[in-house]
Amino acid sequence: MQAYKKLEDRFAQVTALQQAESLLDWDRSVIMPERGAEQRARQLAVLAVKIHEMESDPRVGEWAAEAGNEKLNEWQKANLAVIARRHSHATAIPADLVEKKARQDAVTEFTWRGAKKDSNFKAVLPEFEKLVALVRECAAAKSAALGVPLYDALMDSYAPYVRATDVDAIFGDLASFLPGLIDKAVAAQKDPLPLPGPFPVEKQVALCRAVAESLGFDFTRGRLDVSAHPFSMGIGDDVRVTVRYDEEDFTSAVQAVAHEVGHGLFDRHTPQEWQHQPVGSSGNMGLAVHESQSLSLDMQLARGRDFWEAVAPMAQKIFGLSGPAMSAENLHRHASRVQRSFIRVEADEATYPAHIIFRYKLEREMVEGRLKPSDLPAAWNAAIKDILGITPPDDRRGCLQDIHWYCGAFGYFPAYALGAIMAAQFAEKMSAEIPDISARVQRGEFTVFTGWLSRNVHAKGCLYKPQELMEKVTGEKLSTRAFKQRLTHRYLEQECLSTSAQGAKRHA
Amino acid sequence: MQAYKKLEDRFAQVTALQQAESLLDWDRSVIMPERGAEQRARQLAVLAVKIHEMESDPRVGEWAAEAGNEKLNEWQKANLAVIARRHSHATAIPADLVEKKARQDAVTEFTWRGAKKDSNFKAVLPEFEKLVALVRECAAAKSAALGVPLYDALMDSYAPYVRATDVDAIFGDLASFLPGLIDKAVAAQKDPLPLPGPFPVEKQVALCRAVAESLGFDFTRGRLDVSAHPFSMGIGDDVRVTVRYDEEDFTSAVQAVAHEVGHGLFDRHTPQEWQHQPVGSSGNMGLAVHESQSLSLDMQLARGRDFWEAVAPMAQKIFGLSGPAMSAENLHRHASRVQRSFIRVEADEATYPAHIIFRYKLEREMVEGRLKPSDLPAAWNAAIKDILGITPPDDRRGCLQDIHWYCGAFGYFPAYALGAIMAAQFAEKMSAEIPDISARVQRGEFTVFTGWLSRNVHAKGCLYKPQELMEKVTGEKLSTRAFKQRLTHRYLEQECLSTSAQGAKRHA
Repeated sequence: MQAYKKLEDRFAQVTALQQAESLLDWDRSVIMPERGAEQRARQLAVLAVKIHEMESDPRVGEWAAEAGNEKLNEWQKANLAVIARRHSHATAIPADLVEKKARQDAVTEFTWRGAKKDSNFKAVLPEFEKLVALVRECAAAKSAALGVPLYDALMDSYAPYVRATDVDAIFGDLASFLPGLIDKAVAAQKDPLPLPGPFPVEKQVALCRAVAESLGFDFTRGRLDVSAHPFSMGIGDDVRVTVRYDEEDFTSAVQAVAHEVGHGLFDRHTPQEWQHQPVGSSGNMGLAVHESQSLSLDMQLARGRDFWEAVAPMAQKIFGLSGPAMSAENLHRHASRVQRSFIRVEADEATYPAHIIFRYKLEREMVEGRLKPSDLPAAWNAAIKDILGITPPDDRRGCLQDIHWYCGAFGYFPAYALGAIMAAQFAEKMSAEIPDISARVQRGEFTVFTGWLSRNVHAKGCLYKPQELMEKVTGEKLSTRAFKQRLTHRYLEQECLSTSAQGAKRHA
Repeated sequence: MQAYKKLEDRFAQVTALQQAESLLDWDRSVIMPERGAEQRARQLAVLAVKIHEMESDPRVGEWAAEAGNEKLNEWQKANLAVIARRHSHATAIPADLVEKKARQDAVTEFTWRGAKKDSNFKAVLPEFEKLVALVRECAAAKSAALGVPLYDALMDSYAPYVRATDVDAIFGDLASFLPGLIDKAVAAQKDPLPLPGPFPVEKQVALCRAVAESLGFDFTRGRLDVSAHPFSMGIGDDVRVTVRYDEEDFTSAVQAVAHEVGHGLFDRHTPQEWQHQPVGSSGNMGLAVHESQSLSLDMQLARGRDFWEAVAPMAQKIFGLSGPAMSAENLHRHASRVQRSFIRVEADEATYPAHIIFRYKLEREMVEGRLKPSDLPAAWNAAIKDILGITPPDDRRGCLQDIHWYCGAFGYFPAYALGAIMAAQFAEKMSAEIPDISARVQRGEFTVFTGWLSRNVHAKGCLYKPQELMEKVTGEKLSTRAFKQRLTHRYLEQECLSTSAQGAKRHA
C-alpha cells in the first residue's frame, strides 16, 4: 500500500488546508471586521492555489494509478476513487484558463451586484458575455478530460456521476406533474392566522438552539450564529450553522436552522476515523446528496405537521404566547404555505423544483451555445411563465436574482432539486422502517429522524456514488415517485410523516 | 530584480498562510467549540509544515544570494534581510530534530498542566529533562548555523540581533537598581480605597471599547473579545484583541486593553504597501520591539496619572458611580501599586523586570548545561529570594508558574524586559518632542501618544534592526537610563508624562 499511503498523507494535508479555508470563509461571513475583505480574499486565494498544487501534482496521478493495483479495503478503495476524481477535476482545465476564469468570475459578480440593484441586465451583459465564453471553454476542456458531454462535465462538480440524461428524465416528469399539483394545493390550503409578533431576537435564538439540540446538533462541536444568508460550514467535525432572524416571523429562522443543521449533521457524522481523508469529508459526496440532507430536515421534517406539534409548545413557552395563532396547526400552515412567486430562495416545497427546472434548461442552452447571454431576459420570462404561469415585473426579480451564473457557477442548480427528490426517497424509506415515527416526532424526538439519516447516509461518508447510495438505502434508483407521492399526500390529502396517518390525525 | 521578485511572490504566499494560521489560532482561543481542539491542532500543524517547506526551500537561499546582487531600494533590501533571516532559522535545525522537539513540547506542556495544578515538579521532571536535552540540541544546531553562542541562538528568535552580552549589561544594571527602588516605592505609596464594585461585564465592555477607540483602535479592522488570557492577534491588518473581565476590578481590563491595543496598533500601522511581505509583518521585528509597543501603552501611558484623569470620568459615567473611590487619583493608585509578589503575570511595572532577570539567568544556565532541570526548584527559590526577597510557598507559585519552558520556549523571557526598557526610551523621546502631551492625554487625546508611536515605530515595519530603530528614533542605543529615570520619577518623585510636571500637578 505504499502508493496509497502516499496519497493518504498528501490528502490528510489537503483536507486540513480545506478546513482552514472553511474557517476563513466562515469568519468572513460571520464576524470578520468589515474592512478585512480584501486581505481575506488574498488569504483564501493562496490557500486555493496551495490546495490546487497539491491535488493537481502529477505524482498524485501516478500514485493513484499504482494504488489501483494495491490491496485495499472497501473504504480505502472509495477514498482512492474520490482522490482520483479530485485529481481529474484539478487537472482538467489548464492553469491559465482557471486563472482567467477566476478573475472574470470576480469582475462579473461585482458588476452583477450593481446591475441587480438597478435591475439593469444590460449593465452586466458585456462582462457576462465574456464569462459565458470562458465557461464554455472550461466545459470543453472538462468534457475532453472527463469524457462526458459539455454540460455534464460542469454539473459533475456539483452532482458527481449524475448525467444530463438522468436530469432530463426527472425534470421532464416533474415539469408535467408540478403545475397541476400547485394549482390544487393553492386552492385547497387555508389562510393562516397572522403570527402575534414581534418575536424578540434573543428568544428566537433560544428557540433555535433548543430546536437544534432536539435535532441532535452538538454544541460542543458546533456553533449557531447570525449571517446575512443562512449557511452551514463544516470545518471538519466542527460544524457551524448560521441563520437570520425576522422579528415578525420566527418560523423562518426555525426552518433555516433545520435546513442548516441538516447539512451540519452530515459533516459531523461521517466516520471519525475517515474525517481527515477525502472519503470522510461529506463535501466530496457532492451538493445533490448534501442538499438531500438539509432538505430532509427542512422540507420532509420541518414542513410537516408532526414537527410543529412538537415545536409549537416550545415556542409558546419561550415567547410566553398562546392562542390559535400559536397553535401547531397555524404554525404548520405558515410553514407549508404554497405560493407561486418570483424568487427562488423564498419558494416553498412545491414550487421550488419549478424554479430549478427552467434554470437547468436555460443554463444548459447557454453552455451548449444555443442561448445567447443577450437573449437571457426574454428566455427567462418565457420559461417561468411556461412552468409557473407568472411573469417577473423586472429582471431583478427575474434573471438577475441569483448569484450563481454571474460568479461562473454553471451546472449547479440541478443539485437543489435532485436533493429534494432524494430527501423524499429517504423519508419514505424511514417511515416504512419506523412505523411510529410520526408520534415520536410529535413528542419532539427529532433524533429518531436525524439518527436514521446518520446511520444510513452520514455514516457512509463518500463510500458510494450518489446513485449507489440511494439504491443501497432505499432499494430504488433516483426517482421522482416518492417525491410526487409525498407532495400529493402532504398538500392534497393529509398531513403525515409515517405510512399511517394516525399520529397526525390525532392532533388535527 | 528577477530573484528578488521570486522571493516576493513566495513570501506573499507565506505571509498569507501565516495570517490563516493566526486566524485559526485566534478562533481556537476565543470562539471554537470546546471539542474542536484536536482537529484544530492538526490544521495548524499542516499549515506550519507548509510554511516551513516554503521558507526552508533551498531555492529561497539561492534566490536570496542572487537578490543580494540586484538593485533594490531600502525597503526591498530590508525585506530581503528578513526573508534571509527566516530562511536561516528555518534551515538551522534538521527536520527530524524539529519534529522530535515539537512532539516533546506537546507532551511536556500537557504533563506540566497537571504538575502545576498539583504543585508537583517531580511529576513533570522526566519529560522536562527530555525536553531540555532537545532544547540544547536545537541550540547547538542553531548556534552552528547562525554563528552565535548557544543561548544567543535561541534568543535570536524572540529578540533578533540582541545578544546575551547586551542583556547581561542591561540586566546587571537593573538588578542593582530595582531592589532599592521597590523598597522606597512600597514605603512611599498610599493605599488605594477599595473599588465600589461589582462592575457589570457589559459596562466594562463599553468602557474598554471607548478606551480602545480613544487609543486609535479601528473597529472596522478589528475586534474586541473575551478569552481566558488576554492577547492580541494581528491577522495582517485585521487586528483582534481580547481581555477578560474581573467584576471586582475594572482597571485590570482597561490595562489589558491598553496592552493588547499596543500590540494591535503595531500590526495595523505598518505601511499598507508592505503588509503582504515579511518586512511589513510586525511580528518579524521580534517580540522585544513588539512588547515595547504594548508596554508603551500599558506601562508608560496607562499606569500614569494623566491617563486616569481621562478615564475616570468615562468610567464614572458608564458605571453611574462617583465619589473618591472612583476619582482619577484613586484609580491611578490601583493601576500603579507596587507589590512584591510570586506571579510574573500579576506583577507591576517596578517588580516585573526582576521576575525576568532571574528567569534569564536560570534558563541560560539550563541551556548551557550549568543548571540541571532537577535542581530548578531550589535554584528558582534562591534566585527570587535574591532579587525580590520573597520565597514561594510552593512550586505552583514558583518554577511551575509559566508555560514557556515547558513548551520548549527558551530565550523568550528577556524580550519582555527589553520591551519595557525600550518603551521608556520611546516615551521619554515622545515627551521631549510633544511638550504638552501630559495635558492632552489628560483630555483623552490618547492618539497624541499612539500617533507618535505609529509614525516613529509602526510605520517603519521591519525596515531597521531593533537597535538601529532605537538609535534612529531616540538618538540613543538600547539603555536602562530612561527606564530607571521614569520609574524613579513616577514612583518616588511625582506623576508625569511630559518633561514638565505641570499638567499632572494641576490635577494632583
